[in-house]
Amino acid sequence: MELCVPDTEMMPRAVALALAAMRITSPNPRVGCVLTSSGDVLGQGHTQAAGHPHAEIMALRDAAAQGHSVVGATAYVTLEPCSHHGRTGPCCDALIAAGIKKIVASIADPNPLVSGQGFERLRAAGIEVEVGPGAAESRELNIGFFSRMIRKTPWVRMKMAASLDGTTALANGQSQWITSAEARADGHAWRARACAVLTGIGTVLQDNPRLDVRLVSTPRQPHLIVVDSRLETPLDAHLFIAGRALYIYAAVQNEAKKQALEAKGATVIYLPDANGKVDLTAMVQDLGRREINELHVEAGSKLNGSLIRAGLVDEFLLYLAPKLLGPGQGMASFGPLQALSDAVELQFQSTDRVGADLRIVARVAGRDQF
Amino acid sequence: MELCVPDTEMMPRAVALALAAMRITSPNPRVGCVLTSSGDVLGQGHTQAAGHPHAEIMALRDAAAQGHSVVGATAYVTLEPCSHHGRTGPCCDALIAAGIKKIVASIADPNPLVSGQGFERLRAAGIEVEVGPGAAESRELNIGFFSRMIRKTPWVRMKMAASLDGTTALANGQSQWITSAEARADGHAWRARACAVLTGIGTVLQDNPRLDVRLVSTPRQPHLIVVDSRLETPLDAHLFIAGRALYIYAAVQNEAKKQALEAKGATVIYLPDANGKVDLTAMVQDLGRREINELHVEAGSKLNGSLIRAGLVDEFLLYLAPKLLGPGQGMASFGPLQALSDAVELQFQSTDRVGADLRIVARVAGRDQF
Repeated sequence: MELCVPDTEMMPRAVALALAAMRITSPNPRVGCVLTSSGDVLGQGHTQAAGHPHAEIMALRDAAAQGHSVVGATAYVTLEPCSHHGRTGPCCDALIAAGIKKIVASIADPNPLVSGQGFERLRAAGIEVEVGPGAAESRELNIGFFSRMIRKTPWVRMKMAASLDGTTALANGQSQWITSAEARADGHAWRARACAVLTGIGTVLQDNPRLDVRLVSTPRQPHLIVVDSRLETPLDAHLFIAGRALYIYAAVQNEAKKQALEAKGATVIYLPDANGKVDLTAMVQDLGRREINELHVEAGSKLNGSLIRAGLVDEFLLYLAPKLLGPGQGMASFGPLQALSDAVELQFQSTDRVGADLRIVARVAGRDQF
Repeated sequence: MELCVPDTEMMPRAVALALAAMRITSPNPRVGCVLTSSGDVLGQGHTQAAGHPHAEIMALRDAAAQGHSVVGATAYVTLEPCSHHGRTGPCCDALIAAGIKKIVASIADPNPLVSGQGFERLRAAGIEVEVGPGAAESRELNIGFFSRMIRKTPWVRMKMAASLDGTTALANGQSQWITSAEARADGHAWRARACAVLTGIGTVLQDNPRLDVRLVSTPRQPHLIVVDSRLETPLDAHLFIAGRALYIYAAVQNEAKKQALEAKGATVIYLPDANGKVDLTAMVQDLGRREINELHVEAGSKLNGSLIRAGLVDEFLLYLAPKLLGPGQGMASFGPLQALSDAVELQFQSTDRVGADLRIVARVAGRDQF
């Protein structure tokens, strides 16, 4: 048992536990919990895979496994404890039953239907409830979950890799590889945290990618989403991977091809817009209903441009390699803009070197205010 | 007088003095000097404008002005003291006459004709000479001077400003302003350290810029170089500024226009290549002969591309604004490349936020090894 840990370090520790759950919990939020009494850490834990215990239960079990009583203890938890029977029993009941005296929670559950009910239930049981410490960190860790609960759509992150002059492929189509092995592995880490990866039929036909997580370890693979208006995905494409959910959004009905794709394990969804293309806005809403928190886009400049034009992108994950390639294929085809004031305005979140490359995370200005 | 300064801080202090001379000394190197005895700083100084005293003389004068004797003192200086009569008398003689006992110099003078002669003269006078501390910093501070002395050509730094997706102007030509006021001021600071700014006739005709230093203070304006094959620079262009040297490189003879431009204060130089364009390689060599250490390029994508294609660019100074503009005018027109391995390979020197923007300094890999 760790002794004499300052109270001010309990919530950062719970946040660190939540961070450790990054690739595990989808579509549930990443939550960490620390049980403490008089500066002693009695138990700690984080959310497990969907259908498995939440952070509070893991922390209670950890304390029990160490033989510590948690009667009268304080629980630091990065999200409001659940009060409903979801895939698991309500954490509130477990905390009450264990004799916890005080709860410090970072932030209320963003689900408008349940928000505050956990706190209410705890208070009704005589438990002191404090809310706020670690709120920004917890929300940021779960921005996709908050987005889905509040906006009903995923947090859409678009990954792009280019030379310093913005070229993603040569005029002759060559694009593998512009960035370094380190940047590609880092890109897989971002895939791994997403609920789903999205690409377009152009990329499928040109690169025949798997779009799974290989370069970093992960306990689960994100789903794959393909925008494929005319159901042109080849039946022998590399993207068919046993055990990975695959959703193909189409616009033009083709029942024979649909059945063939579904025989390979895909789910085909028709969502046409008025122009015979996939209705991207409706697709993103549908992905929200399918419990996609973070949607990781890796597509070509055409689909990138369409998603940007439709105002569906929240964040850009951009790798810039220290090289110049001259004019070629750009990052995203949209416009042409008529005025500089029509630009998609972003805010830098971070700029870091990854291997030889530069990684830029930038958000559409104001898009995280929901 | 400052007392008890550790010896290890003397050369960093001399380097800091040299840094303070950044916008002053062109075409001379930026040099700092500290005179010390037993941890006391007796005097210090840096190179003044061309034709005015060097760092060593300034430091000797500073000590004298404070009434300090420098007999037996040690001089820390960031470059080998000069032994020749240039615009000013040789610093070696002044140091010897003053009774200096020891010289710690960062690096030898890069001029192959004089390199080592200063050290020789000092040693012949019985002065102890140590060379090395601060060498990398001193060379970096004077990379243009070292380039001109060793390669006989300037250090060519190309400044570009673009959106995150690499667009420098909309399809309709709009380009003012993509980056923030802070980035533009920072760009002027980089202009101010250069011996000359270079642009092309396309930029002159499209933007009618002054290309002087206005947004930061400077004691001198860099020269302006215009690549103008057919002498199309309008006689009423904003770039005619009293007191600033203006060189126009042309390919097609037009004596009447030449005389008119020279009447406005320009120097016109014919340097045609076989295609009737300005021979850019010959131009850069000519600029070396004209004592240009750092050449700051601010041009359009066409001239940028030509300079890159000719292998004349050493370093890129790139401002990326946090916005997307979609396809438009790119940074530099060269290529199309046939293979990714044909890329211009760079190395990041620094990546920093400047205001809302990102500033990237990247060098052509290996170009600083001369």
